[in-house]
Amino acid sequence: MAGARTHLQWLTASEARGLISRGELTSREVVSACLERWRARDGEVRAWTFLDPELALSQADAADKTDDAGPLRGIPVGIKDILYTRDMPTSFNSPHFQDFFPRIDAASVALLRSAGAVIMGKCDTVEFAVNGRRAATRNPHGLDRTPGGSSSGSAAAVADGQAPLALGTQTGGSVIRPASYCGVYAIKPTWNAVSHEGFKVCAASFDTLGWFARSADDLALLCDAFNIHDDTAPNFVGLAGMRFAVCRTPVWEQAEPATRDAIALCIRLLRDAGGSVAELELDPEFDGLTQAHMTIMQSEMRSSFQAEYRQLGDALYPELVGIMANEAGQSRADLVRAHDLAARCRARFDELAAPFDAVITPSTAGEAPLGLENTGAATFNRIWTLLHAPCVNVPGLRGPAGMPVGVTVTGPRFRDRHVIAAAGLLGEQIAGYARRPGSATKETATI
Amino acid sequence: MAGARTHLQWLTASEARGLISRGELTSREVVSACLERWRARDGEVRAWTFLDPELALSQADAADKTDDAGPLRGIPVGIKDILYTRDMPTSFNSPHFQDFFPRIDAASVALLRSAGAVIMGKCDTVEFAVNGRRAATRNPHGLDRTPGGSSSGSAAAVADGQAPLALGTQTGGSVIRPASYCGVYAIKPTWNAVSHEGFKVCAASFDTLGWFARSADDLALLCDAFNIHDDTAPNFVGLAGMRFAVCRTPVWEQAEPATRDAIALCIRLLRDAGGSVAELELDPEFDGLTQAHMTIMQSEMRSSFQAEYRQLGDALYPELVGIMANEAGQSRADLVRAHDLAARCRARFDELAAPFDAVITPSTAGEAPLGLENTGAATFNRIWTLLHAPCVNVPGLRGPAGMPVGVTVTGPRFRDRHVIAAAGLLGEQIAGYARRPGSATKETATI
Repeated sequence: MAGARTHLQWLTASEARGLISRGELTSREVVSACLERWRARDGEVRAWTFLDPELALSQADAADKTDDAGPLRGIPVGIKDILYTRDMPTSFNSPHFQDFFPRIDAASVALLRSAGAVIMGKCDTVEFAVNGRRAATRNPHGLDRTPGGSSSGSAAAVADGQAPLALGTQTGGSVIRPASYCGVYAIKPTWNAVSHEGFKVCAASFDTLGWFARSADDLALLCDAFNIHDDTAPNFVGLAGMRFAVCRTPVWEQAEPATRDAIALCIRLLRDAGGSVAELELDPEFDGLTQAHMTIMQSEMRSSFQAEYRQLGDALYPELVGIMANEAGQSRADLVRAHDLAARCRARFDELAAPFDAVITPSTAGEAPLGLENTGAATFNRIWTLLHAPCVNVPGLRGPAGMPVGVTVTGPRFRDRHVIAAAGLLGEQIAGYARRPGSATKETATI
Repeated sequence: MAGARTHLQWLTASEARGLISRGELTSREVVSACLERWRARDGEVRAWTFLDPELALSQADAADKTDDAGPLRGIPVGIKDILYTRDMPTSFNSPHFQDFFPRIDAASVALLRSAGAVIMGKCDTVEFAVNGRRAATRNPHGLDRTPGGSSSGSAAAVADGQAPLALGTQTGGSVIRPASYCGVYAIKPTWNAVSHEGFKVCAASFDTLGWFARSADDLALLCDAFNIHDDTAPNFVGLAGMRFAVCRTPVWEQAEPATRDAIALCIRLLRDAGGSVAELELDPEFDGLTQAHMTIMQSEMRSSFQAEYRQLGDALYPELVGIMANEAGQSRADLVRAHDLAARCRARFDELAAPFDAVITPSTAGEAPLGLENTGAATFNRIWTLLHAPCVNVPGLRGPAGMPVGVTVTGPRFRDRHVIAAAGLLGEQIAGYARRPGSATKETATI
């Protein structure tokens, strides 16, 4: 089955872009290959809430005809179904919004269109990108398992060859977690590096638009489109001499063997390649960040969902009703303390991380849970979302059940390009390891 | 002309609400009175970009027929034309968005509707609520002067009796400044106390939805609708014994005589009423906040307006093009330093303000400038927007040109209700002073 990867649906966006720009490939060919894959697999994977093949192909044909060589010309991109799209409905995967159809594009979608992208369709999500109704999506690597939430369909579509790129959002762990479970690259950039305009707000202090891809280069390609640049370009070209740190975080005891093994293996691979790896110890104050994340998120949800709560009341799903009713009894003083702790730790983490080229940390506790009801936990993502730090999931390793397990590369705020570059180098090393005969995490080529 | 104030268009929302709930007034009567005022004055004041009398009246009739006694049942509210409204166009007062019609409501507009409000129309704004094209609106107190920006139409409509309430937004000084110039109450609540969803984003770290009214009670009424509550209710009932501070801010030297006199008069009135007034000195670190505000706002605008910049390029207005091209050369390091300074000062201001019931500070440098081109400056508002502190403009005083000059009441984050209550007490004192024969700021009843 390895040959299937050479088919057009497995091209990365960067590969397809090169071929299209040289006239060796059309957008219609790429989009058609993705649609063929979708037709073959959708009954099982169910990544999309909306996909109209004719609408996708008509955009592809327009891209093939234009003289305007935008950076994403003709490249299909899936859109998480909490982002507005002027020509497709937006359901939030909520039973209450099945007829919702804002006739506008989210700022990010508008930007993709102006860069020449083909808006492929809407990707399934956990209700409101929070909780409640789960996506119908299954993990392409094991159909009896969750793809993770809340950007379930976005991660699965990219993992399954139904689109080379997809947008998602993260407030807790909704980009990095499904990327880890589905075995794809993804970035949650620095908070506010990309416009939040035009999607269902959960917690404005944390909501971050991110994206999924099958290579680190593709993550960088969308950074180009979104105008994300560090102050200086990364000055490393290979792992030799690079300075890494491992941060086990205050929740390390929740890491399962799959994740412990993945982190240990990364340390070994980085050292084998000539990099140094130190331990990055967080101050005791960081122990409060998981609680601070919960306090800020839920307090801000009481603003964000106030209109829905007024209109729908107890018809909303029970957990959301409990948050709206403030059953946890979070005070404004709690919220202010949480904001101020978060702000202090943001500055402090930047200091702690500054001596290193990148910081390695778990993406998830382990492999994707069985079933679709439990979409996994944001345990290892919350603190990075709160810290506004750029995070990239690096795929390539697998756990004892044969399912993907990612690792996160992070760093100081607005070092997105550095983090992507370091993640790409680590990813190459992991891929090389996985190809070795007898390696414990050998790629199984099940898809 | 004083009798005109007894007409229905001059009812506050709280007064109209009481009469409607007791069956002594209909929404149609209130809306009709506002429409009558609009017809008489619109040729001069020009507060609205869109107003359809039939659409407003049909909502009034629906409110009069319903059994659902929402907190704003039948009360007309103007909406700044950067907020989405499902049944009215949204232009951002931009030449590039004259046909823009998102078929959705901003979260705040949806909440008003569910509270029973009549969405009266769209209020003119400075382009994108930033700069560029000015509102066509004139100051109702002096038609040769600006109403202030960017929430120009919202402030003018409320000041002129064309609606008792209007929504605006503030990123620099776009709520408090026009309120000061137009002589109305307004609140910029604590950041993120109200959902930002559904409007043109400028700078997500600062953008704050606020509202205009003709009484402090009306500001509180919308707090009810938006579910804004402090941890504890204000424990003061009159000015006697209250502890005030005056904060002259690092930009005090830019205060004109009108504002210096207004602050001095407030100190005297508060002391005469039995309150204490201390000076609140900010630490030297606060001197950097004006620059930090500019750095964060412009850096975030490069995300927020990226799609428009890609599509329109130099067709955008020149100042915005300069910001998009980062002519100021703001680095990511500058941005991070600005964020961290802002966060430290937020916590520090809360400490400094904690011993007081409220803090008094200028709303604007002085009276509204002549002409419509110069909408005034956010000089005295930037630091409070950056600090995320709740701010209320208190009207009632006038400067040497006879134009309104407001003062701001502020306090620690999430003390919105305390700030409104203190502002209401100060406002009563000012109104009593203005009614005295021979007072220097006697209300001139020009409208």
